Amino acid sequence: MSAYKAPLRDLRFVCDELLDSDGHYQKFPQYSEVNRELRDAILEEAGKFAEQVLAPTNRNGDEQGCHFEDGVVTTADGFKEAYQAFIDGGWSGLSMPEEFGGQNLPKSMDLVVSELFSQANHAWAMCPGLTAGCRSTLLAHASAELQQTYLHKLTEGRWSGTMCLTEPQGGSDLSFLKTKAIDNGDDSYAVTGTKIFISSGEHDMSENIIHLVLARLPDAPAGTKGISLFLVPKYLPDANGEAGERNTVKAGSIEHKMGINGSPTCVMNFDDAKGYLIGEPHKGLFCMFTFMNAARIGTALEGASHSEVALQGAMRYALDREAGRALTGVKSPERSADKLIVHPDVRKMIQTIRSFAEGNRAFAHFLGQLVDSEIHGDDQQKAHAAGLLALLTPIAKGFMTETGIESASLGIQVYGGHGYVREWGMEQNMRDSRISTLYEGTTGIQALDLLGRKVLPDGGEKFGQFLKMIAASLPEMDPQFAAPLGAKLQEWEQLTRGIGAKSMSDVNEMAAAATDYLMYSGYVVVAWFWGRMGTLAKAKAAHSDELFYRAKVATAQFYFQRLLPRTTSLKESIEAGSSSLMALSDEEFEQLLG
Amino acid sequence: MSAYKAPLRDLRFVCDELLDSDGHYQKFPQYSEVNRELRDAILEEAGKFAEQVLAPTNRNGDEQGCHFEDGVVTTADGFKEAYQAFIDGGWSGLSMPEEFGGQNLPKSMDLVVSELFSQANHAWAMCPGLTAGCRSTLLAHASAELQQTYLHKLTEGRWSGTMCLTEPQGGSDLSFLKTKAIDNGDDSYAVTGTKIFISSGEHDMSENIIHLVLARLPDAPAGTKGISLFLVPKYLPDANGEAGERNTVKAGSIEHKMGINGSPTCVMNFDDAKGYLIGEPHKGLFCMFTFMNAARIGTALEGASHSEVALQGAMRYALDREAGRALTGVKSPERSADKLIVHPDVRKMIQTIRSFAEGNRAFAHFLGQLVDSEIHGDDQQKAHAAGLLALLTPIAKGFMTETGIESASLGIQVYGGHGYVREWGMEQNMRDSRISTLYEGTTGIQALDLLGRKVLPDGGEKFGQFLKMIAASLPEMDPQFAAPLGAKLQEWEQLTRGIGAKSMSDVNEMAAAATDYLMYSGYVVVAWFWGRMGTLAKAKAAHSDELFYRAKVATAQFYFQRLLPRTTSLKESIEAGSSSLMALSDEEFEQLLG
Repeated sequence: MSAYKAPLRDLRFVCDELLDSDGHYQKFPQYSEVNRELRDAILEEAGKFAEQVLAPTNRNGDEQGCHFEDGVVTTADGFKEAYQAFIDGGWSGLSMPEEFGGQNLPKSMDLVVSELFSQANHAWAMCPGLTAGCRSTLLAHASAELQQTYLHKLTEGRWSGTMCLTEPQGGSDLSFLKTKAIDNGDDSYAVTGTKIFISSGEHDMSENIIHLVLARLPDAPAGTKGISLFLVPKYLPDANGEAGERNTVKAGSIEHKMGINGSPTCVMNFDDAKGYLIGEPHKGLFCMFTFMNAARIGTALEGASHSEVALQGAMRYALDREAGRALTGVKSPERSADKLIVHPDVRKMIQTIRSFAEGNRAFAHFLGQLVDSEIHGDDQQKAHAAGLLALLTPIAKGFMTETGIESASLGIQVYGGHGYVREWGMEQNMRDSRISTLYEGTTGIQALDLLGRKVLPDGGEKFGQFLKMIAASLPEMDPQFAAPLGAKLQEWEQLTRGIGAKSMSDVNEMAAAATDYLMYSGYVVVAWFWGRMGTLAKAKAAHSDELFYRAKVATAQFYFQRLLPRTTSLKESIEAGSSSLMALSDEEFEQLLG
Repeated sequence: MSAYKAPLRDLRFVCDELLDSDGHYQKFPQYSEVNRELRDAILEEAGKFAEQVLAPTNRNGDEQGCHFEDGVVTTADGFKEAYQAFIDGGWSGLSMPEEFGGQNLPKSMDLVVSELFSQANHAWAMCPGLTAGCRSTLLAHASAELQQTYLHKLTEGRWSGTMCLTEPQGGSDLSFLKTKAIDNGDDSYAVTGTKIFISSGEHDMSENIIHLVLARLPDAPAGTKGISLFLVPKYLPDANGEAGERNTVKAGSIEHKMGINGSPTCVMNFDDAKGYLIGEPHKGLFCMFTFMNAARIGTALEGASHSEVALQGAMRYALDREAGRALTGVKSPERSADKLIVHPDVRKMIQTIRSFAEGNRAFAHFLGQLVDSEIHGDDQQKAHAAGLLALLTPIAKGFMTETGIESASLGIQVYGGHGYVREWGMEQNMRDSRISTLYEGTTGIQALDLLGRKVLPDGGEKFGQFLKMIAASLPEMDPQFAAPLGAKLQEWEQLTRGIGAKSMSDVNEMAAAATDYLMYSGYVVVAWFWGRMGTLAKAKAAHSDELFYRAKVATAQFYFQRLLPRTTSLKESIEAGSSSLMALSDEEFEQLLG
């Protein structure tokens, strides 16, 4: 098993050198005391926690999985202890307001920390990640009383949270939702129904579990417009605010999955469970989107994290393992073979992984800063950030998770047959990575959201603003990056126009283009970050002999030369249109199956 | 779990309608009695065996894996019984000569049958697959005496075979090989050493296990030129030719792997084990290549098989599961949602999988016919087939396995979150598929073989002949396929010339292009098959209302419009060259790791 190392140098490059964290924090009055030094101190400690506490339990979690018996879930050895250390270290409430016991730090800092945690142990990090989403939703939409009752414990981490959307009869399609909530006449509701795929729905790490549950009131209109959001605790708070009486919500079973085995994925049965309405009746989906949008950025970051794990493993093996000889001549005559790193194709795999790990990292933490602006900025900053987040979140979620799986698979490939056995952790990384294009909305759902809800409906307004933002950065960008990126911007705009025009007469043209379009967009957005990083690193390399900068330039060049060209094929595929997809009717597909 | 169905209709289309199996069999005097009807009868039975005997044990194999204790391996419930049924059914010796108890059928027929078996249960099918390779090697290179002693039982299947190449210190690089063989002075040798990653190295399905082992004689030159091949049985044959005295070869452990858990992957310890030389001393690699070339085509077919399994699963789910509404308007007003198949992106995923499943099938069975010609043809046929096989085997192995993994991953994606849980078999299919780009030479090794040994060294002679063969088929091809394929042929030739020219001054240019070039080549070769299949099906559709033909045309169009464009990006990436890969020195990579 490769020893995980927190990538602090690169995180600092992204946050401080590329994204000017100090300048960013100073935009917000409430963060006047936040600065790079403070962030650095937190980063160091988070790195230690990830390396020393979380990473050592990662394989345990995979091999032992979770134990289920009569509604009780026992997590793998070390998970509970790691969670207690997480509470004790004060990691849970980093970005929560002080009034609930939090440390009042920016969300963007949470994201930096959670990158490290999910690299070290994706399965374990699911629980704190969901708790954070639960807290954000309560902060934004719950009554002051519910906030007082629940947010202190959720901030401390002694209570954890979940998101209960999916039901057996429908996954992404919430119009199927059957779970019912009936008014008890005392400000509480009786919630009844079955939810599936509930991450951390039941476990032994926290004292209480707070479920956010989508359900229908008796008078609810049909479809997705009749869904309300309820808070349903595992234990009802007692007079002292501690976990008291057991509520009638219980795990029915856990799933046997491909990966993230350390995270219990539960079927949850609500049987007249006592719950409390969050926000307005029938406006539950709106509230849940607070959760969902944060979760999508978190999932995007998981994708980037799987690339980082693959990078560390592949680099270590390529520099340790000896096989064959360099084609250009023996490199290590004293050894019976040269190291794997001499082979161009091994380097190509490693640089592909690195391009995604580091490029996606920059993209993700850029989004983290936008989240800060969306919450704490002035009106103009809020609107700007909200618009960009709406556009970029589906791109980030889809692209970073798809390329996370590719990276994880290449991580195995660098190891040859050794990558297929458990010992080195590369196959676990791939199995763990595979969930990320599925949950929080599949890539196909992100793609429809991007093209059908974000790019096309406003006549390309938001999209055009983003293009201008990129274009504005080109004059300061090194021409080796600015020239191809400028050309891609034009191409992207034309491509978008073309899809828009065709979709006017046939909406299937939009849907048939959507996933290719999402990936195309991802490659261009990440090219923007690589162009800026390459330019910055080239300038710094002139005044520093730190290898880090030269490597950054080389990777930027690699990305532009060998990965950005993937856009060309995606464009060709998009422009070929929907006809070959729609040539057979549904019934004909049915007959084909026989 | 989806019920596996043998894809007999498509196999018949490929073998009979596209590849004219009757005409093919008639080329060989010894197959004068072989015809399509006989092949069909065998196919029917093989389909039943795959569906009824092998497929039901597939999940068992995955979940139970293999049990190892003190050198003894116990396979999963049902594996041993399935193997006995395989022997009883006479499946083992299908293509073996009658003198050894075989049925003297063409190798191409073996390949058709093994496609079905590896679709139904990849892990189980490993053992018969290796036995077939072992038999071919003995047939081609072993003494008459060794053949008499071993081939009868191996043909019957009561004895199984292995291939023992890899050692702990070196994977693909055989120059590391340390296993020793010392002449016992009685026509036998004492073989000592450790081999790893030995599939079916030890198990309970056959009465004896015949290992083909690469080892060095004491006077062997260093490197790969000093390697000899030995036959080392688990049990030495007794006076009656049955398994007798236990030889000193023993399994030391089995690997814990990502997939194909039903197949035991063993560490094998040879401790002065009695063995017999196959072929000439120091010429072992040459003999082993008989095994390896067959194994590579078999592995290519495994890739195609994982696409088929994904196709069946994805089709079934997309036609059963309801979610969302067609964007063009409600399709099933009586239901609360439409079926998944209405969504263009779901169709895109399914047609991508289908393109690979069916296109790669055609490619694989074309190779199967070449194998027949290479073994049984006249001198000219042999030379032609050998040249084509040399060129196409690495393309087939690399392309079909890479696209097999992509298909398996898309198979999960169509299911959404349900694809990630074990129940539906899609995640097992992906885990099982992931081995295929690693064993029998990684994709990178195939790519170097293709470009560095097959395409460039003879000045493009073999490659040029193949281009002419494709070009000769264009006049009969429907223009919608012939025009783009013709353009790709020119592009492929120019691309190849370009790499050749650059590689003259820097061999790293060849190596940096190799995997992209292999994939580019794969897309063009499969376009050749899709162009021919599409043309044929279009003609047949005019005289038949069988939906099969219209679906074939639609898939051919899909392949040309939405998948063949991937070549454009691969070309751009190749032409960008090696500079961004070689910008950092090995030492700088080392420092980066820290």
